[in-house]
Amino acid sequence: MATRPVRRLGILTGGGDCPGLNAVIRAVAKTAIYQHEIEVFGIEDGFLGLIENRIRRLHSADVSNIITLGGTILGSSNKADPARFPTGYNEAGEPVFKDVTGDCLRHIEEHKLDALCLIGGDGTMTGAQPFIDAGINCIGLPKTIDNDLEGTDITFGFSTAVQTATEAIDRVHTTAQSHHRVMIVEVMGRNAGWIALYAGAASGSDVILLPEIPYSLEAICDFARFRGKHGKRFSIVCIAEGAKPEGGRPVVSRIDPTSPDPIRLGGIGERLADDIERCTGIETRAIVLGHVIRGGTPIAFDRVLGTRFGYHAVHLLTTGATSRMVVMRNGEVTDIDIRAVANKQRLVPRDHQLIEAAKSVGTCFGE
Amino acid sequence: MATRPVRRLGILTGGGDCPGLNAVIRAVAKTAIYQHEIEVFGIEDGFLGLIENRIRRLHSADVSNIITLGGTILGSSNKADPARFPTGYNEAGEPVFKDVTGDCLRHIEEHKLDALCLIGGDGTMTGAQPFIDAGINCIGLPKTIDNDLEGTDITFGFSTAVQTATEAIDRVHTTAQSHHRVMIVEVMGRNAGWIALYAGAASGSDVILLPEIPYSLEAICDFARFRGKHGKRFSIVCIAEGAKPEGGRPVVSRIDPTSPDPIRLGGIGERLADDIERCTGIETRAIVLGHVIRGGTPIAFDRVLGTRFGYHAVHLLTTGATSRMVVMRNGEVTDIDIRAVANKQRLVPRDHQLIEAAKSVGTCFGE
Amino acid sequence: MATRPVRRLGILTGGGDCPGLNAVIRAVAKTAIYQHEIEVFGIEDGFLGLIENRIRRLHSADVSNIITLGGTILGSSNKADPARFPTGYNEAGEPVFKDVTGDCLRHIEEHKLDALCLIGGDGTMTGAQPFIDAGINCIGLPKTIDNDLEGTDITFGFSTAVQTATEAIDRVHTTAQSHHRVMIVEVMGRNAGWIALYAGAASGSDVILLPEIPYSLEAICDFARFRGKHGKRFSIVCIAEGAKPEGGRPVVSRIDPTSPDPIRLGGIGERLADDIERCTGIETRAIVLGHVIRGGTPIAFDRVLGTRFGYHAVHLLTTGATSRMVVMRNGEVTDIDIRAVANKQRLVPRDHQLIEAAKSVGTCFGE
Amino acid sequence: MATRPVRRLGILTGGGDCPGLNAVIRAVAKTAIYQHEIEVFGIEDGFLGLIENRIRRLHSADVSNIITLGGTILGSSNKADPARFPTGYNEAGEPVFKDVTGDCLRHIEEHKLDALCLIGGDGTMTGAQPFIDAGINCIGLPKTIDNDLEGTDITFGFSTAVQTATEAIDRVHTTAQSHHRVMIVEVMGRNAGWIALYAGAASGSDVILLPEIPYSLEAICDFARFRGKHGKRFSIVCIAEGAKPEGGRPVVSRIDPTSPDPIRLGGIGERLADDIERCTGIETRAIVLGHVIRGGTPIAFDRVLGTRFGYHAVHLLTTGATSRMVVMRNGEVTDIDIRAVANKQRLVPRDHQLIEAAKSVGTCFGE
Repeated sequence: MATRPVRRLGILTGGGDCPGLNAVIRAVAKTAIYQHEIEVFGIEDGFLGLIENRIRRLHSADVSNIITLGGTILGSSNKADPARFPTGYNEAGEPVFKDVTGDCLRHIEEHKLDALCLIGGDGTMTGAQPFIDAGINCIGLPKTIDNDLEGTDITFGFSTAVQTATEAIDRVHTTAQSHHRVMIVEVMGRNAGWIALYAGAASGSDVILLPEIPYSLEAICDFARFRGKHGKRFSIVCIAEGAKPEGGRPVVSRIDPTSPDPIRLGGIGERLADDIERCTGIETRAIVLGHVIRGGTPIAFDRVLGTRFGYHAVHLLTTGATSRMVVMRNGEVTDIDIRAVANKQRLVPRDHQLIEAAKSVGTCFGE
Repeated sequence: MATRPVRRLGILTGGGDCPGLNAVIRAVAKTAIYQHEIEVFGIEDGFLGLIENRIRRLHSADVSNIITLGGTILGSSNKADPARFPTGYNEAGEPVFKDVTGDCLRHIEEHKLDALCLIGGDGTMTGAQPFIDAGINCIGLPKTIDNDLEGTDITFGFSTAVQTATEAIDRVHTTAQSHHRVMIVEVMGRNAGWIALYAGAASGSDVILLPEIPYSLEAICDFARFRGKHGKRFSIVCIAEGAKPEGGRPVVSRIDPTSPDPIRLGGIGERLADDIERCTGIETRAIVLGHVIRGGTPIAFDRVLGTRFGYHAVHLLTTGATSRMVVMRNGEVTDIDIRAVANKQRLVPRDHQLIEAAKSVGTCFGE
Repeated sequence: MATRPVRRLGILTGGGDCPGLNAVIRAVAKTAIYQHEIEVFGIEDGFLGLIENRIRRLHSADVSNIITLGGTILGSSNKADPARFPTGYNEAGEPVFKDVTGDCLRHIEEHKLDALCLIGGDGTMTGAQPFIDAGINCIGLPKTIDNDLEGTDITFGFSTAVQTATEAIDRVHTTAQSHHRVMIVEVMGRNAGWIALYAGAASGSDVILLPEIPYSLEAICDFARFRGKHGKRFSIVCIAEGAKPEGGRPVVSRIDPTSPDPIRLGGIGERLADDIERCTGIETRAIVLGHVIRGGTPIAFDRVLGTRFGYHAVHLLTTGATSRMVVMRNGEVTDIDIRAVANKQRLVPRDHQLIEAAKSVGTCFGE
Repeated sequence: MATRPVRRLGILTGGGDCPGLNAVIRAVAKTAIYQHEIEVFGIEDGFLGLIENRIRRLHSADVSNIITLGGTILGSSNKADPARFPTGYNEAGEPVFKDVTGDCLRHIEEHKLDALCLIGGDGTMTGAQPFIDAGINCIGLPKTIDNDLEGTDITFGFSTAVQTATEAIDRVHTTAQSHHRVMIVEVMGRNAGWIALYAGAASGSDVILLPEIPYSLEAICDFARFRGKHGKRFSIVCIAEGAKPEGGRPVVSRIDPTSPDPIRLGGIGERLADDIERCTGIETRAIVLGHVIRGGTPIAFDRVLGTRFGYHAVHLLTTGATSRMVVMRNGEVTDIDIRAVANKQRLVPRDHQLIEAAKSVGTCFGE
């Protein structure tokens, strides 16, 4: 394992954007420059910049005043796996892929990068494997707005997403109440319902629907009617995009670009709105928060978390650690093997304390 | 016209909810109670409460601490026109309507209401006509989140909606920039594009599309490509739900409950996203803000405006004015004939100063 | 110890208010009523309501829609210790105290309260001792905006305070930068600097001053000059109200009601502003955030935390536990002996990970 | 007067910073560059940059993405009057001033600037006079957070300041209510009480005190006691920093750098807090919002206003107008003679509609 001192460090952000990315970039760059006189290089648009050799020096001034900014100053890309990079189409119109890892390694060598900080999710960590195999020291920084990464108690961006979703549901509350409607708010979460659980509980939503707990339409309608009988002529439903009815399949997301369906149907929120209105006769509306909760200024917690993660990543590099991923465990920032997390998702356990607490204050989980 | 002193005043809110309604209710009730010892009665759920005799005394304590609340403490209803109230279905399954104005008048008499404050839009003002004809003094307070009411320079709720939409677009900005996407944000505005114009200009949106200016898809795509050539690999489009392509018809809104279409298509935002992505190859996403911008705490401006409107309504009542609607003209609160505004909409003029200003800073209006 | 089932539960909030109190009250009341058919009684204004027998039944409707509200619907009082209740003044003008625990016990008996939920800080937990001694089952819920309570990793309200302070510093940042000033923002924290540390790190403050680390004026001035030489002609200082210079004593707080000084001097922030401006010649301004960070809508995290704490308190009561205090440890809500925490404060350790991280990104701690 | 086409335009921001400055800079620069191919030059730190020849070319990229930023990207300075520029001290220790207008004119000529856009308040417009006299075309853009400039109905930054102050008072509300206190919130406004009037009315403050209406301490205390008798055991007071008691003089502001008093006393808010607590025995606290309300992201309204103002300034320049100041009148952006406004302040008239409205809902103005 390479333990020579790191002199030149590359940093990239991969996958969907997330509040707090810039706090991490700032902390990595400032710690490296100020404390260890490491030269830092920003790789643009995730692995794409590595493939296309778009790599530029980052000075401390470049990362000043970015802690409040959403998004990533480095840019990102969703689908740039060096091991399987699309280069065009064959005669049958099928996409053709090529392994461009060699190009990447050449660009790494050209810039004399001793190590890489990779800020990304599952895809980015998996994409790092060829570089690890080639002896590049890779330090992973976990990024998933859904908070569903195995190995860490929390990821940056999640708390901001929950806060934004909660504020949106707060807004919707007054309309629901004034018009005696069921209002459904669909939030992110294809496989894991963390955002829906936290934003639902925080906003006092009456119904919370998670991918982990298939819902019974009947239970939800009974609950809405029950509330009506007790003078509460409105209900708020917070639903994860990946929630599904018992025995049902998840709805094809309206914004899934890989959907083969040219006339894309609405998501699960709209489907549920139709179902509830038809079953109960109560006017029902659905709202999809979508990308709004990815963006914007990170809340203080995520800025702090990003700063701590970024600092720890450089600490690892300068103490000779290799192939680690920074994580939060029991309130302490620490690290695990970067390969330990591949393809593992942290779902909401059905006996999670917050589910118990939410049920006790009267929340229906569609069961 | 009756000019006897008002001793008992009814107040109702009709139509969609809007930030600032409670500021108006508070100002009407407190002014009436504190300054003129008028008894105030809240009519629940708009005209529906008048039809169903759900009318309750409002004391000053009932309107304390409500200035910060979104929605309406009185409740509202969208479709309760006393002259045409649905009572069931005939044998052919068609809805049957009945004129229940007489019931309303009986309930007004029962509660000895001398006058009504009607907070609502076009529908509510039109619905007031039979009561005016019956000699009830009706004072109108204009409510439309779209700001499209003829006769007043501005309506409460509009500024909060613009602020909420602007903050949402600010959030989306960082995602667009990080991912080099076109992001389309669809806001309210079926016939008038005031919200799109103001939120678009405030957020520095690159493209603003209004119902008043049919757009050319080609012009938009050219603009996005032009930006790309100049190093701006993302664009933000702010589109009113009622915008439409040149020669095209408006898209059937996904959340229009009167739509005959059981599988409801997406709105104009999603249609445009498809079109842009197909034409330019640039990844494009649409977000529909919908009801989120109706709700929540009103911004300071709308609380002040609501307070001024409510005060003026009572001032009119106690000075013998009848059948007036409170309006804002040139910075002064004043009033016009309540019948002057029926069925007239204030659209964005194509030579509006803000359109000129936005064009000058480089905004494309799809022309 | 009494383990008979709880049938009637009293709840009170003591000490300074804190975002999330109503989330706790709601969770305690709803869990007790819905899950266990316990009757819940709200005691007004902390121990004062117990002393003065102001105790009222709380129904579930009383705690509906309060999760978003700051403050406490029960009211609070800062200085109502039943063991030492001021009853007037003696001839020498000195206050006279009386032990009114007996009155409290009589009122508890009168309302047949089986148990008490006490939401408060150190003072409230200490004040509970006589009731515990008298065999009343008391469950404590820790409340301190300063996050300085021994035994729990975090307390509700802290995160909201950090968020509010961070947003205020963000605002001040633009003024500092535009005017090339040193701007000092003083936040709460008499003995523990948690708020200053987190808000300082989150806002990217250049200098963070904590009660735990006495500061050197010279070090701060050197740092501001150093920044100036490197083109950064402004600095942001985040200082806890209890911070103090090396060898110095804490400044008498301007808002300390017990201060004997009739012409109250400014706090530490203003003193430091004077010092820096005199030493460096750089224009310096101080802002005291004060009570602004105590109030307002709790952020999502604190609503969730309050809900979990409230649920757990009732869980303890119904499983026969006595004299426990609800705490958060390593991400799990659990409980400890209520007497374990008296008079112990959790200070920021000098080797806290976040201090290390903040130093690494260039933050000066006045050393 | 010169009417030759403008080819090179200088722009500066003077005086205290204000939300919306960057929206104006952006609109001026983009309109000039995109529409008229004018080269734009940013002058740093107000007149100081003109004096010291710190003038740099602004390209459109320099003003991209700044519409959301508080402060001014150009920097500002409070006290740089070219006609009276401090150059040092004489033997008696008194400051020595010099007229450096000649230097400024030389720097203007050196950069071949045909015209100046001056964004500032009264001081900046007065400071422009020598340049106007020298034949430089100066267009003024009025900036005052206090909204007290004669000639325009509103200035940018004011609405954001009102919004920020209102949100702060909303936060304080819950503490006041929970603790049965009088809470005093001091906001900006030395001579004109616009911010206090609007933020006070918007927040439902119980007492609003303006510089224009000297207050009676007795009236305020009577009012607080009256509220107490009617079950409202708290009061919120919104006071402008320049408010004063009847017959009294304004308090020397704590943050006045010109104060000769080394131990600076608290401002009017703290003085009033002492007075109320002493007179009524009700616990009273004061909060000074200060610079917090100057900073931060401008609300949508101010971004739109700044955009419209900036656009109009360039429109004036390119249509041959000279020595004009951009203003808003009756909802339209227009312009007046730049010399018309010198030394005139727009105070709150005692019969302003909003004062009437606020009184009617029960607000006390200390009379």
